[in-house]
Amino acid sequence: MPGTPALIAIDWGTTSFRAALLDGTGAILDRRTAAAGILQVEDRAFAAVVRSELGSWLERWPGLPLYASGMIGSRQGWVEVPYVPCPAGLAEVAAAVVRHAADGLALSFVPGLSRTDAAGVPDVMRGEEVQVLGVADAARDGLVVLPGTHSKWVRVARGRIVAFHTFMTGELYAALKGHTILGRLMRGEAEDAAAFARGVRRGAEEPALGHALFSARTLPLMGLLPETGVASYLSGLLIGAEIAGGLGLAGTVPAEVPVVGDARLQRLYHAAGQVLNVGFVAAPGDEAFRGCLALARQRGDVR
Amino acid sequence: MPGTPALIAIDWGTTSFRAALLDGTGAILDRRTAAAGILQVEDRAFAAVVRSELGSWLERWPGLPLYASGMIGSRQGWVEVPYVPCPAGLAEVAAAVVRHAADGLALSFVPGLSRTDAAGVPDVMRGEEVQVLGVADAARDGLVVLPGTHSKWVRVARGRIVAFHTFMTGELYAALKGHTILGRLMRGEAEDAAAFARGVRRGAEEPALGHALFSARTLPLMGLLPETGVASYLSGLLIGAEIAGGLGLAGTVPAEVPVVGDARLQRLYHAAGQVLNVGFVAAPGDEAFRGCLALARQRGDVR
Repeated sequence: MPGTPALIAIDWGTTSFRAALLDGTGAILDRRTAAAGILQVEDRAFAAVVRSELGSWLERWPGLPLYASGMIGSRQGWVEVPYVPCPAGLAEVAAAVVRHAADGLALSFVPGLSRTDAAGVPDVMRGEEVQVLGVADAARDGLVVLPGTHSKWVRVARGRIVAFHTFMTGELYAALKGHTILGRLMRGEAEDAAAFARGVRRGAEEPALGHALFSARTLPLMGLLPETGVASYLSGLLIGAEIAGGLGLAGTVPAEVPVVGDARLQRLYHAAGQVLNVGFVAAPGDEAFRGCLALARQRGDVR
Repeated sequence: MPGTPALIAIDWGTTSFRAALLDGTGAILDRRTAAAGILQVEDRAFAAVVRSELGSWLERWPGLPLYASGMIGSRQGWVEVPYVPCPAGLAEVAAAVVRHAADGLALSFVPGLSRTDAAGVPDVMRGEEVQVLGVADAARDGLVVLPGTHSKWVRVARGRIVAFHTFMTGELYAALKGHTILGRLMRGEAEDAAAFARGVRRGAEEPALGHALFSARTLPLMGLLPETGVASYLSGLLIGAEIAGGLGLAGTVPAEVPVVGDARLQRLYHAAGQVLNVGFVAAPGDEAFRGCLALARQRGDVR
């Protein structure tokens, strides 16, 4: 029945804790967020965080299933849940969920996914897999992009995750901005749409990223890019390189590519897609919670 | 006559000052080095540095021509010398040398080179052009590589510099090592030849650098690379990507590619070349000084 709580889902990452109370339709009845990422929790006192943040829900609806995804299921988290190899869909991921009871709390931890490419090199994700499973049906075939510190490009076929690739885009941007000559050239961080678009084009067209990056120095040096636009240009360049690389590795360009992430990143990818003729569309949000609901239903914890 | 001083050449960069006293054959009769890079010189007291470091030469051989190359000829240096557009050989570079007399000292400043690619994006170098002009005849056709913070790949035809590309390899390595998760995974910096070679191969084979980099996280995570090898692997990966990109942009793979730089970098490029079947050979050294001599002779300052 809509409105009746059916699940508590927690999206618990390195730097943030987000939780939702869902009914059986996926509607979100209440939510909590806290600066209690796994790196901020001392002495692994994870149970105490759950009690203090979600105590009122636990009291009012005892026995509700709790699902947690993200880095909380890593070696540095509460319970280490082994990676599930790709291809994997709802069935394989649900089968690998680890239920852990302690201190009067029982939680179900979602596994991450792993993959090995033709060269024998592994890739991993943890937290994104549940978001992809929570994306609406539109993405049951095609690509889903989850931009961020370590962007993920995920290929989905018949609702199963068949492959994915990580790009260190966000972390590269921060390191380049904070600790190279490119950052020292930046004047301000105002968004400059024209500079961003130029960066996107450059990043997509020049295959050698280590060379392409230097244009963020030479263009302002030669007076061809305002110093106030360097930050946007560099951001565009890295995103453009990611898009070209992601499409190349995926080997496909679907008509629509859902982007899971915050509104600012969704806007940037949409703008980059207009430059490169890729149809990035914003995913509606709360995919992690809806993915947990799908897993809980698959496991019979929610009917 | 060999042994008779003919020129004082100064290689004056951002962080170092190196000078040599040369005879007309290019033999180096004496040298000086000082931690007096242009960033270390206060109040632009460049003349005082020349007097204090080279005073004994100036007294004993008054009237010797002085040539200076590198960032000393930039906006942040002593005299800003405009870039010379490519293609350019000894004649064009010599014609653009700027002679500047002040405080009883007269110096000839070597210009940098600029280039604009088909997309209208500029590239620049300052200091490397004179090194390329100082490379022995073997490189009069082909490629010269100058690895470093901003590696340069320079294409030479009939002794003229026809094109070049910059790669931010050294600066990328430092930023990734110092300020990303890849650096936090490194245990020590011992050179690991096997890890380096694996990185070279990965960097050359995976065109999307932002994706390839993530393997420096996943390989140790999965126990496929010792943490003591991550630094070498990352170094190899960036150098491998640079080599693949440099050869791609140059559109040619000469049998021998001289590497101008310090012995450690020459050794790394030689090892990378063995993995990728590229014949990197160590340039003998002191190219900047010999390039100044070639320019001074072209200008009639040395007979």
